[in-house]
Amino acid sequence: MFITHLFVSCYRGFFTCLGQDGTVYDPLKYLWLQGRQKNYIYVYIGGEFLLAYAQPSADSLKCAFVVTRDGRAVKVQRTIFSECFYVMAMDELWRTTHKEQYKKAAREMTDQIVRWVREDPSDLGRPQLLGADPVNSMAVPMMLLNLVDQLCEEDEEAAKKYEELGAWSVERILQHIQRDGQEILENVSEDGKELPGCMGRHQNPGHALEAGWFLLRHAIRHSDHTLRQTAVEKFVLLPFHSGWDQEHGGLFSFQDVDGHCPTQLEWSMKMWWPHTEALIAFLLGYQETRDLRLLDHFQTVFDYVFTQFLDPEYGEWFGYLSQDGKVALSIKGGPFKG
Amino acid sequence: MFITHLFVSCYRGFFTCLGQDGTVYDPLKYLWLQGRQKNYIYVYIGGEFLLAYAQPSADSLKCAFVVTRDGRAVKVQRTIFSECFYVMAMDELWRTTHKEQYKKAAREMTDQIVRWVREDPSDLGRPQLLGADPVNSMAVPMMLLNLVDQLCEEDEEAAKKYEELGAWSVERILQHIQRDGQEILENVSEDGKELPGCMGRHQNPGHALEAGWFLLRHAIRHSDHTLRQTAVEKFVLLPFHSGWDQEHGGLFSFQDVDGHCPTQLEWSMKMWWPHTEALIAFLLGYQETRDLRLLDHFQTVFDYVFTQFLDPEYGEWFGYLSQDGKVALSIKGGPFKG
Repeated sequence: MFITHLFVSCYRGFFTCLGQDGTVYDPLKYLWLQGRQKNYIYVYIGGEFLLAYAQPSADSLKCAFVVTRDGRAVKVQRTIFSECFYVMAMDELWRTTHKEQYKKAAREMTDQIVRWVREDPSDLGRPQLLGADPVNSMAVPMMLLNLVDQLCEEDEEAAKKYEELGAWSVERILQHIQRDGQEILENVSEDGKELPGCMGRHQNPGHALEAGWFLLRHAIRHSDHTLRQTAVEKFVLLPFHSGWDQEHGGLFSFQDVDGHCPTQLEWSMKMWWPHTEALIAFLLGYQETRDLRLLDHFQTVFDYVFTQFLDPEYGEWFGYLSQDGKVALSIKGGPFKG
Repeated sequence: MFITHLFVSCYRGFFTCLGQDGTVYDPLKYLWLQGRQKNYIYVYIGGEFLLAYAQPSADSLKCAFVVTRDGRAVKVQRTIFSECFYVMAMDELWRTTHKEQYKKAAREMTDQIVRWVREDPSDLGRPQLLGADPVNSMAVPMMLLNLVDQLCEEDEEAAKKYEELGAWSVERILQHIQRDGQEILENVSEDGKELPGCMGRHQNPGHALEAGWFLLRHAIRHSDHTLRQTAVEKFVLLPFHSGWDQEHGGLFSFQDVDGHCPTQLEWSMKMWWPHTEALIAFLLGYQETRDLRLLDHFQTVFDYVFTQFLDPEYGEWFGYLSQDGKVALSIKGGPFKG
């Protein structure tokens, strides 16, 4: 978040579409980026905006993905992610204000998300199609584990309430270890088998690393040494080794496990977020294990990030580089980067 | 279409996900690319597959965007484009076989598309949201004009039936001429005004050039010299001048009319299709006007295309180059390129 250029709208909430110099180039407000702050004032501004405007209508269970400056819904995704970020904001607001309304909002939405994921996804709005078998997509259990982490921090009652959900999420994440333990695949079947075609071969190194440090935090909280080691070896080291561009440095956005060319146009771009996930994963991993390989890789990523992503002219990080490290998009914030 | 490597499935239809050497890397069948052939055999194979499997269920009005090898729907887009390509295939099948069932299918789907666009879009599946005002997006009237062109070719009864639709489509396309006639904008309001934010400033040079030659064909058929000149000056020359990369050559995929950085990650990539649209637009424009500027620009695009997109090793064109003309994706076919 470009704090020195943080524009707060008269309707509350943040403008996140900021150009290279920090000026607003679009007044739309993207909901993944509202309320993901730890500073009280920012949490309050973003969280209150979410509470007022995230849901497109009074009877809607869903949250919007993007709203107008004054809070009218522009787009609703048929996924759970806006809702997950809403929960995080509400929980953080509760932690800073101790007002029950925020805790209630966080709990109710969490229960709703779990129903969509584990019981019945039909209210997400995606039609059931004969050729679209259910998929265990890494993003889903990964986000649920992150929610459990957020909700349970220093809260024994929550830790008890969400213990089973945490265990379920861990189990679903571990199903993504495939090919005799040598690869992390982004999409597997509901019973943990490799899927056919591009979807089955798809790899997302940033997601794997992110899942890695979510698993690590869970392992630390539960003093689970086996899980700690699995997190480090399979979800941190493997995706770094296969996902790091040996020629130009940086993590690829997407890969195909068999070396086919991915169909995602941005597959070879270097995006900011897989690199922040890698920095966190390596540092947390090293802190826990004192494994020097992790410190060494942290340094590699750190050097790449602070020479390639940093803008010496206006400050902050660029978000999107070409494969060879040139700035591909000069924006500092947009629909996904705050 | 990589004809020498055209794999026809035992279920009919074409595999279009072909790697650099023409081998199939995914058995999914993308519907935009089935049946867009002029050769009888290919039309038949693609068209029959569409007739059997395009609609996800017997009572569905929509067509799928992608189906499994054996025709089960995987994804349905909340737009009209799969349905438009279905109409083209059915009309072409009717023209080659003279079987009424194909004509009937083409007409019924066309009427359905027109109802979605001009009367009630709710069955497309997109929820009505308070912040999402109706938009005149260039892609929609452009595709309708292309349908009218297809359906009316050497068919006087159809020409009469669809005359009003053609005129309406032309009028809606012309609303995209903005900023005192100096720019083509991709999205305008329903009454033809510029929209705020990124959406309003968005430019798509390939779409503008494509609309240009659709308008040209309409102008030729109706001997409309004013429209012919507008098509050439506004929809062919303007987007070429603003959309051509002066540094590396090639047409940008997306631009922002005020020079802000677009938020689409692929904005600076050079894709095959805007270049094919440009080649057609310049050649047709020159044929009609004998304006030497158009022949000159045709040569510029031709030289770029046949040095940059061609694969000397395995033949066919690559589809996606980086801004500086390197092959970014080695695939020959995928979800959008056949």
